[in-house]
Formats: sequence, C-alpha cells, structure tokens
Amino acid sequence: MGYTDKDWLAINTIRILAADATFNANSGHPGAPMGMAPVAHVLFNKFMKFNPKNPNWVNRDRFVLSNGHGCMLQYALLHLFGYALTLDDIKNFRRVDSITAGHPEAHDTPGVEVTTGPLGQGISNAVGLAMAQAHTAATFNKDGFPLIDNYTYCFLGDGCLMEGVSSETSSLAGHLQLGNLIAVYDDNHISIDGDTNCAFTEDVVKRYESYGWHVVIVDDGDNDLEGIEKAIKECQEVKNKPSLIKLKTTIGFGSLQQGTHSVHGSALKADDIKQLKQKFGFNPEQSFVVPQDVYDQYHKHAAEGAAAEEEWNKLFASYATKYKAEHDDLARRLTGALPEGWEKNLPVYTPADAAVASRKLSEIVLTKIEGILPELVGGSADLTGSNLTRWKGAVDFQPESTGLGTYAGRYIRFGVREHGMGAIMNGMAAYGTIIPYGGTFLNFVSYAAGAVRLAALSQVRQIWVATHDSIGLGEDGPTHQPIETLAHFRALPNCMVWRPADGNETSGAYYVALTSKHTPSIIALSRQNLPQLEGSTVEKTLKGGYVLHEAEGAQVTLVSTGSEVCICIDAVKELAEKHNIKARVVSIPCFEVFDAQSKEYRLSVLPDGIPSLSVEVMSTMGWERYTHEQFGLNRFGASGAYKDVYKKFEFTPEGVAKRAIATIDFWKDVPNIRSPINRAFQQII
Amino acid sequence: MGYTDKDWLAINTIRILAADATFNANSGHPGAPMGMAPVAHVLFNKFMKFNPKNPNWVNRDRFVLSNGHGCMLQYALLHLFGYALTLDDIKNFRRVDSITAGHPEAHDTPGVEVTTGPLGQGISNAVGLAMAQAHTAATFNKDGFPLIDNYTYCFLGDGCLMEGVSSETSSLAGHLQLGNLIAVYDDNHISIDGDTNCAFTEDVVKRYESYGWHVVIVDDGDNDLEGIEKAIKECQEVKNKPSLIKLKTTIGFGSLQQGTHSVHGSALKADDIKQLKQKFGFNPEQSFVVPQDVYDQYHKHAAEGAAAEEEWNKLFASYATKYKAEHDDLARRLTGALPEGWEKNLPVYTPADAAVASRKLSEIVLTKIEGILPELVGGSADLTGSNLTRWKGAVDFQPESTGLGTYAGRYIRFGVREHGMGAIMNGMAAYGTIIPYGGTFLNFVSYAAGAVRLAALSQVRQIWVATHDSIGLGEDGPTHQPIETLAHFRALPNCMVWRPADGNETSGAYYVALTSKHTPSIIALSRQNLPQLEGSTVEKTLKGGYVLHEAEGAQVTLVSTGSEVCICIDAVKELAEKHNIKARVVSIPCFEVFDAQSKEYRLSVLPDGIPSLSVEVMSTMGWERYTHEQFGLNRFGASGAYKDVYKKFEFTPEGVAKRAIATIDFWKDVPNIRSPINRAFQQII
Repeated sequence: MGYTDKDWLAINTIRILAADATFNANSGHPGAPMGMAPVAHVLFNKFMKFNPKNPNWVNRDRFVLSNGHGCMLQYALLHLFGYALTLDDIKNFRRVDSITAGHPEAHDTPGVEVTTGPLGQGISNAVGLAMAQAHTAATFNKDGFPLIDNYTYCFLGDGCLMEGVSSETSSLAGHLQLGNLIAVYDDNHISIDGDTNCAFTEDVVKRYESYGWHVVIVDDGDNDLEGIEKAIKECQEVKNKPSLIKLKTTIGFGSLQQGTHSVHGSALKADDIKQLKQKFGFNPEQSFVVPQDVYDQYHKHAAEGAAAEEEWNKLFASYATKYKAEHDDLARRLTGALPEGWEKNLPVYTPADAAVASRKLSEIVLTKIEGILPELVGGSADLTGSNLTRWKGAVDFQPESTGLGTYAGRYIRFGVREHGMGAIMNGMAAYGTIIPYGGTFLNFVSYAAGAVRLAALSQVRQIWVATHDSIGLGEDGPTHQPIETLAHFRALPNCMVWRPADGNETSGAYYVALTSKHTPSIIALSRQNLPQLEGSTVEKTLKGGYVLHEAEGAQVTLVSTGSEVCICIDAVKELAEKHNIKARVVSIPCFEVFDAQSKEYRLSVLPDGIPSLSVEVMSTMGWERYTHEQFGLNRFGASGAYKDVYKKFEFTPEGVAKRAIATIDFWKDVPNIRSPINRAFQQII
Repeated sequence: MGYTDKDWLAINTIRILAADATFNANSGHPGAPMGMAPVAHVLFNKFMKFNPKNPNWVNRDRFVLSNGHGCMLQYALLHLFGYALTLDDIKNFRRVDSITAGHPEAHDTPGVEVTTGPLGQGISNAVGLAMAQAHTAATFNKDGFPLIDNYTYCFLGDGCLMEGVSSETSSLAGHLQLGNLIAVYDDNHISIDGDTNCAFTEDVVKRYESYGWHVVIVDDGDNDLEGIEKAIKECQEVKNKPSLIKLKTTIGFGSLQQGTHSVHGSALKADDIKQLKQKFGFNPEQSFVVPQDVYDQYHKHAAEGAAAEEEWNKLFASYATKYKAEHDDLARRLTGALPEGWEKNLPVYTPADAAVASRKLSEIVLTKIEGILPELVGGSADLTGSNLTRWKGAVDFQPESTGLGTYAGRYIRFGVREHGMGAIMNGMAAYGTIIPYGGTFLNFVSYAAGAVRLAALSQVRQIWVATHDSIGLGEDGPTHQPIETLAHFRALPNCMVWRPADGNETSGAYYVALTSKHTPSIIALSRQNLPQLEGSTVEKTLKGGYVLHEAEGAQVTLVSTGSEVCICIDAVKELAEKHNIKARVVSIPCFEVFDAQSKEYRLSVLPDGIPSLSVEVMSTMGWERYTHEQFGLNRFGASGAYKDVYKKFEFTPEGVAKRAIATIDFWKDVPNIRSPINRAFQQII
C-alpha cells in the first residue's frame, strides 16, 4: 500500500521498454506487457521472494508467464531486478543468438522458469510447479524448518484459458487444493481475432469456481495498485484452494491504439511511442532508458531476496544438523545427480527367465528403484492398472482431506488428461527436486504432443511410460494402435524414444532416461509378453543399438525394436532351417542414443557389404536411415486378438523371412553394398 | 411415458447382449452399455428419427457415443433397429475383419456417424455435427420447408469430460448457442483408476453452466425412464443453448460387480452373467438371445423412421419445384462431388508474377473458389490475420443474437482451440453437406494430433491451412517453429501433407485436397514470400512430385518442398556458375500423393544413376525414402529475422551447393547408383 509516483515511474519504464524493444525488433507483442506492468510491479516487489544472483535457489517464488508472447514484460523485470540480462540483451530482442527469444526459453534465459508461448502450457507448468512445491514441502519440512514454502505465480491470458490443456490442469489443481498457486488472468477482452466476444464468452469466474478455485476480481488493473495488492494478499490467505485473480486491464495501455487487437502482436508506430513517452514523462527522443531510481527500487528488492536466501541457507545448514539424511537427500536432488550405486537395483535377466510384457518389466523396474530414488514421482492418466505405473504400497499424492493420500505421496492420479499430465511433468521437472514420470497408452502421448515438444526444447528430464505400444494391444483396435507415433517423436529433437525388446533393454532404457538430465524419454512398452533374449544386456542397450545375434557369413541383417525383435530371432531360425540362409539381428531400442555413438561403432552394428531389413509393426518412416529395406505397417491396424492381428499383417517369422529373402535377392547384384550409416556430410544438430 | 415390461425387456436384452459379446470376445467394456441401456432405449425409441435402411439420410438425428469403449451399446442398438449389422457381427465383436471393432469406426460400420474411443473426441465431433446442422438449416430451410431440423445427441462419460478437447468445444458450443445439441453425461462415478473422486471432483453442472449450457440432472438413470424422457423433452425445448443431462447411473447395472471399476474394462465372469440372465428373466444357458418382441418394438420404430424419410423426400421434391438452385446445390453436396468446372477458378501463375507468401496464395485460392464452392466452411483458431483464412466479405458463423453474424455465415471463429477445431471439423465433415477447413500455425496442428489422426482413420475430407510452416516464420522462435511436424503427419496413414513451393503448387494442393473425398489434408504454407517458379504447373503438382528443372547430364538431383525449392533453383545457378556442376531440381509437395504414382513415373522423377539430395528446413526423417543424402534441421530453430535464421543454418544457395558437391563426391565411386524408388518388396498399405 502507499503507492507513489516512484511506483508509476517503474511501471511506465517497463511499458516503454516493451514498446522500445518490439519497435527495435519490428516484431513482438507490446500489448500484454503494457497492460500487465502494474500487476507485475506489485507482485514482484511486494510479494515475490527471489535472488537474481542465484536463479536456482530452491525456495524462490516461481513466476510463469503463460501468455509467453508478452515476454518483454518478463525480460524487462529480469533486467531491472539484476538478473544476468542486460539492456543490450533487450536491444537484441528477437535476434539470432540473443538470450531474449521471441518467447521465453528456460534453458537460455536466466530467471525464466519454464518455456512458454504455446498457449495453455504455462498455467499447466505452474500447476506442476505448485504440485512439486507441495510434495517437496511435505517431504522435507519439519517443525521449525519450513524449508519449502514458496508460491507459484502465473500470468495468463484469454488464449491460455481457451486451450483445453489449461482446463485439464486447472481442474486437477482444484482437486489437489494447491493453495500456493496464484494465477492472474489478464482479462483484456482482446485476442488476435479481435474482441473475445467473437469466440470466448464463457463465464470464467464460474468455470474456475467449478474447478474448486478461489476467484477474486480486480476491476481496474490499469490503475488500482492497492486493489491488486489486496487481491494477492487475499489469495495468499486461502490455503486450501488455488486462486485466480481476474484482472481487468487495457491491452497496450498508454498507446493510441490501447484496448484494440492492433497492439497485441505488432510494434507500435514511431509516433505512438513518442506520445507514450511524453505522456509518461519520458524523453520522446530517447530509447531504452531506465531511470536510476527504478534500478534502485528494484535492486533493493533483489537485495532483500538475496538476504532471504542467505537466511534460508542458514536454516538449511541447521536442518543438516538435525535431519542429516533429509538434508543430504534434498541437497543431492538439487544437483540432479542420482545416489551412487542406484543402478545396482535395476533388474537383469537371462534367457531362462519367463516371458513378460514389457509394461510389466517397467513395473518391476519402478518397484526396484523407487526406494533408492525418492525423487521419482509420477502416475498415470487414469490407466494405472494398464500402464502398471504404481508400485505396491505407493501412497497417492492427494490433499489429506480427501483421505486418499498425502502431499508426501508419490503416486499421482492425473485423470484422463494426457496433455495436462505432460505439461505438469514439465513444471514438476523444472522445480528441481523431482524426476516425474507419467503413464498412458503410447497412442495417447500424441494428445500431449505440445507438452512433449516443450520438454524436449526446454531440456527437462521426464519419463513417459507409454504402454500398449503397437497393434500388439489387440482388441482395442485402430483407434488405439499407434502407427505414426514413434516416427513423430523420433523426429523431435532432443527426445529419446525407447522401445525395449526385453527385460535387460527395459532396464537399460530406464538407466539412460534417468541419467539424462536434459532430455525427456518416451519408453514404448508392450501389452503382450516378450521372451528374455539371448544376447541382450543392460550395457549394450546403453548404446541405443547393438548386435543381438551375430552370424558369421550372414547374408542379411534384421534390424528391429521391441516386440518384433523376438520375431526376428525366430525368423533367423526359419531362414536357417528352411532356406539355408544366415541372418544376423540388430536391436535399436533408441535412435537418438544410437545416433550419438561413434561412426565406427555404428558401422560395426550396421556394416557395409550386407543388406539390411528393418522390422517394426508401424510406420516405416525413418527406418531408411538405418536399413536398405523396411518391413512395417503404413496403414492403420485392426481390432482382434493380438496374434490374429500380427498374422493378418504377416508379422510372423515366416513373414519376416519372406521379406529377408526378397531383400537378399534384390541386393545380390550390388557390389560393395554400402551401409546407410555412411553419409556424404554431417547433419546440423 | 407409460413404460411397461416390454421396455425393460428391451433394455435388459441390450445389457445381456453387451455382457455376452464382451464375454465371447474375452475383451471389451460391458459396464457402460449396461448402465446406459435405459437412456439409450428411451432416446432411440421416443425421440430419435432415423432410417436404418438408409443411414445416410441427411435429416436423420445424429447419435455419437463419445465414450466409445461402450460400443457394444451402439452395436446392440444398430442390430436391434435393423441396420446392416447382424447377430453374427455381434458374435464377432473385436475379431479381425469384423465390422464390430473394439471402438466404433464410422467408415466400417453402418450407422456409426463418427469414429470414437479416444476420449473427448466424440462430444467434440457432436459439436461439429450440430454446427453443420445449424449452418445447413440456415442455408437451405425456407418458409414451409424445414428441410434440416435434426438433433445431435451424444453420450459421454467422465473421461470425455476430463479431456481438454471437450472443454474447448463445449465452451464454443455454448457461445454458439447450439440448441439442437443434447448430451447425456453418464455420471457413474467410475473411471479406470476407480472412483472419480481420486482425480475428478469438479462441479460439472457449474462448469457447463459457465459455458452457457442448459443443464438438467436425472437422479436415477437406472430406473427412472419417465425422468429420462422428461429431461430430454425439456432439453429439446431449450432452443438457444446446448443441453447436458447429468444422468446418474450404476456402471455394469445388474452385475454382481455393479458400481465398481471391475466392470468397466473387462468381461464379466461366467457366473456373473448367469445370475444376470436369471435376474432379468433370461435363460442362463443361452447366449446372444433377442426376444422377438424386442425386435418387433425396435423394427416398428425403424419403420416410423423410414416413413419419416419418405415424407422428407416428398418435401425435398416439392422444394425442388420452388427452390431449384438450392435443391440442386444440396443434392449435389450430398454426393460429395464438386460443381462441374469449379477448378477453373483456381489461380495459375507464371514466373513473371510477383513473389507472394504461400499463406497469401492460399488466401487467393479461398477467395477465388468460395463462390463456386458454397460447401467450403471454415475458419481459424484465433489467427485469422496470420493464417489469411477469411475471404473479403465473409460472414461469420454466429448466432444472430451476437450481432456478429448468422448461422448461414461460413467463417468460424474457433478461438485458440486447435484440438477442438480439428475434432469439430471431423464432425462437420461427417454431417455430409460441408467441406471444413481450419487455420493455425503448422506447429500447433500438433495440439490437434488426436483429431487429425481420427480424420485420417475415419476417412473424412478436411483441410488444415497450416501457415508459418518453418523456421521461416522468424522472430517467434523455436517455440513456434516446426521441426518434427511434417514427419509426424507424413507418417500418419491416409493423411496428405502438402508443402507447396509457389502459386501453381498451392492451387494444385487445394485441387487434390478438395477432390479427395476420403482423406484429410494439411497444407503447410509459408509466412515469407516465395517467387513463382519456372516449370511449376497445377497439373504436375497433382502427381505429388515432379521434375521442376531438368538438366541434361546432371550430376545431382536436388529434391525439395515449399520455401526451399526456390533456394534449390538458386543453388543450381551457383553450382553451374561457380563449380561447373549441372543439377536438376525435383519438387515433392506431397509424399502421400507421389507415393501413389506408378513406379515408372516415380523413377522418371528420381531416376537411377544419379545421386540425390533433399533440402527441407526441418527434420530429415522420411527423406531417406526418396534421396541418397539429406539436408535438413534435426535440431530446434532460432528466434530472429527469417533471413538471419536461414543463414545461421546455411539454408542458402551456397549452403545447398556445398552439400550438393559433397553428395556428388560421396557417390562418385558407386557404379549404377540406384534410385531409392527401387524397393525389394511392396509395403503393406
């Protein structure tokens, strides 16, 4: 309370920085920063606790700009508070190789918690951050040691509210009673197509109340700083509900075009910026000006944040004396490293072990490692019994009042919300104390494509337990049988797509997924049983691809993944016994990891001089990179018992053998067959 | 009203058929059919108007089973009413090559309107069906000729409500005041993970009211047939709002396990089925029994439907005498054929024409053809000014009370709801009178992956106007720049992915998209300007790929799409002038269409004896199918002016030439270079 001209000077500085930067870039979105500068000023200075010199302090308040196109607001704040983001960086807004990209990117810009821009993601990441906070607090806080009590704040716009992913995660946030989550809805009545009344006339207040949120309305977000402060305070006091502040603002406040969609997505005109500066008492001939007084105010608050961290560090040190194990666990988790020797818990198998569905193998891994990896927290999108994602004795992550679990619980009931689950995992991973995993059918990871993409782009560790990974799911039929899904995510940069063939490969997939700190993984797992293979090991799996079955004088290499590897092994017998043909078998459970091996190694797996045939019951797209010929399914599947479906499409030892023979025949006249591993030049990666 | 034992006999027949079929298949979902049999009985017999002998009658009431796993309910109804679905088909439930797949498939099963199972899609399709109904009614109905007045009914469960796509489309349905849409929410409190209170505790009534729906609650959906009838009647009377009936039911009603999740997704035990049959007065030793009396009841209603269609046919014939043009237009649309000569409206270009962004070329096509193709109805997911999807003078599809348009309007404001837009387009296309199109950035088609997949599977014609198709969008940066998107949808069966290089190719893409009655299309379009190419024609484009630039004695073939084709043309000059190398250029705007050409033709485009290099600024995945070497971008892009971004990644004539030289060099020692078009065996398609 007690706002003065100094506050308005800061607010107007932010507005003008946004106008200058977008003008300078001739691109960008000035409207939202200009409209939301007042609430940002109040929130960041009166409420938020953070230390710009250490953007990774675990108990900092988190801020998410879900309407990421308004990123000049965030960049201006980061700059003013003294994060490692200079005025030159703001002058380089939206330029190649700057740290001020067109939308905020967490891995590039210090102080940006999560990568936003694709609408609906940020608010959903915020739900994940708040869940991680609640879980971490419940796990580590002790009497007298409130180690973790940060808030998660999020700004979002109409677009975020229209996207379905925000509905999924907001509904779950209400169910979970996430009191430390406070979102500010920029109710400016404008989207790209103009007035929101053309497509978005729902009652947002009522909708969020229906989810179980606390909702406050602030009528004049342009001027009423006291009202904003009061609203945030009120929300902080509501401990058992997330809060939404519906804040009425004027988009592009101060511009001659304020309140219209013309200030949404393009720079203001030069004249408009001039009058804006004059109106706010700035020199219209100067650009990128920050009054020293504004720096002083903001640096003062930053210093308070640094002091708060220092206090916290003391608290944490004293926690160490009393709760050594917990202290060390949290400290370790914050480094992203796993406990030494954890990998000894990964199960290994021999061919004498029983055939098991790889979804079950995944369950065994989770069961064996959950004890030593307390940071493993996850669940399923309402397919627990099918995904087998819940170890025996797991406690649900639930508010106590439900009687179904506690916040310290590590098993999340995501509901039928795949996209929300993905975006929540992104937020949970960003919090820094958790490795999230989420289960669904492989086919429905596609529902979450927008979130998986951001996981890859923002380089977060997370694991998709993607069961029912092919036509092998059988009766559920084509609506549920993935054809394009592996190709889709294999084409996504920095995303590991695993399709293990047996128990050792499943353990290997988890090993790499868990130790890759900056890459999400999708582990595709079978519904049907798979035998434990002769020749597979965890170690070989770590290379992404390896020779499973070598054969002196082989005439063809069969290259496969997952449930088709054992069919290839049977095809080898078929070829030997009925056709006197020798074949070798290669398993490539993960393209991304195999591609990262040396050329020498890859050529040893897929050598020159021998034709190769890939075998995978889905789209052949991408297999041409490794093999000369491809046996796959470039059509939709069929509903029926899985063996009947495999038979219909000839994914049998006989069907593979037939195509192996065709491959040998087709390549027999080619001298010096070249392995596809040989390329004319290096890819840009 | 006045329900008797006859009604209960029918209801219990449906329940037992569902139990028998899932038991026989040892797979499937008996719970929902058993719980929803009462409402289905009332709805289909007391309200719905349809003719099983002609499932395509345009004014039939539409029924969508959004909880598609409950498909035995739908199959039982179709059978009892006399659709072309026999008791043997029900015995073959979930068997390979049956018409009774594990989830309902529209293209396979007569009487199934849309393909459902992936949750949230059906209710969204229903919104599309209701929008199509409102539009078709507004377009064709005249005083005394209520040609189109059907209702759209939809059953949905908790899972559908949890999925974000249902939120998107339900919000839009409320905004659009779709009075002829009536949805029944099966409030059985059970999902796969158990009681819905573990993840889904929102207030659904309040949520739907917030969207502007009319909501009625029926407390006893198991027994209160009168209450169900009254609720549906009430909803029919609400003309300016869609309606939701929250119907409390007991999942698996009659089973010993009723009300638990164990009846959700697996067959009942033999003993349980026995007691069920006894309880309902059926012979416990017999299976798949339909009492003749049930057939009689249902066939009587079917006959009323047939009579209604006959009446309608008379009305339509009399309409012809008074409104000949409208009659002929509607009759034509129902065949799916386009007006003769429509294609003459497609613009053609010569190299003398100006360079234009292909998103703008798309706008020109829409503008030129909208007059002759009144069935073209579409819009954008709040990116109208960027997608350029709205022709000048278009009228918005809006309820009159908004003052923003009319139901006869053909431009839809979808809001920021890509997934919903896709699912709505699926419903609109299924209605039979409309060719829907929808605009968004290519990157955000991924948000709609679930709906696009169903478009391809269910074989509907629809067009995605997917602009900003590459790093060429520039400043918005990596969050918006597609890398994996084309590979993803190219791997999807029966989906055409177009990436035209200039005006003639854009016209060609639209020609194929509009004339392919059973295939969705994604047309990827540039933000940046592209020159009109020497050698491109609409006709050549129709083959999906063609030789754009031939060169006698060429040493390399450059193969490209979209905005990189003109860079390849410049690279040809660079290679000739600076390196004395001859190169030819092939454009492949659509893999799916090119693949369908004869091998002879494809080999003429990509011949033996010459190495080839693909050039496309995104994932190289899939290009190995056509070319020996690939120049692409297997990483995320960058935020900056588009020319700077292209330069950063060397997508310049020099960068292409460098790689062309490397390609020639790498392949120079290989005798008889084989075109990748040659394959050892045919793919299963």
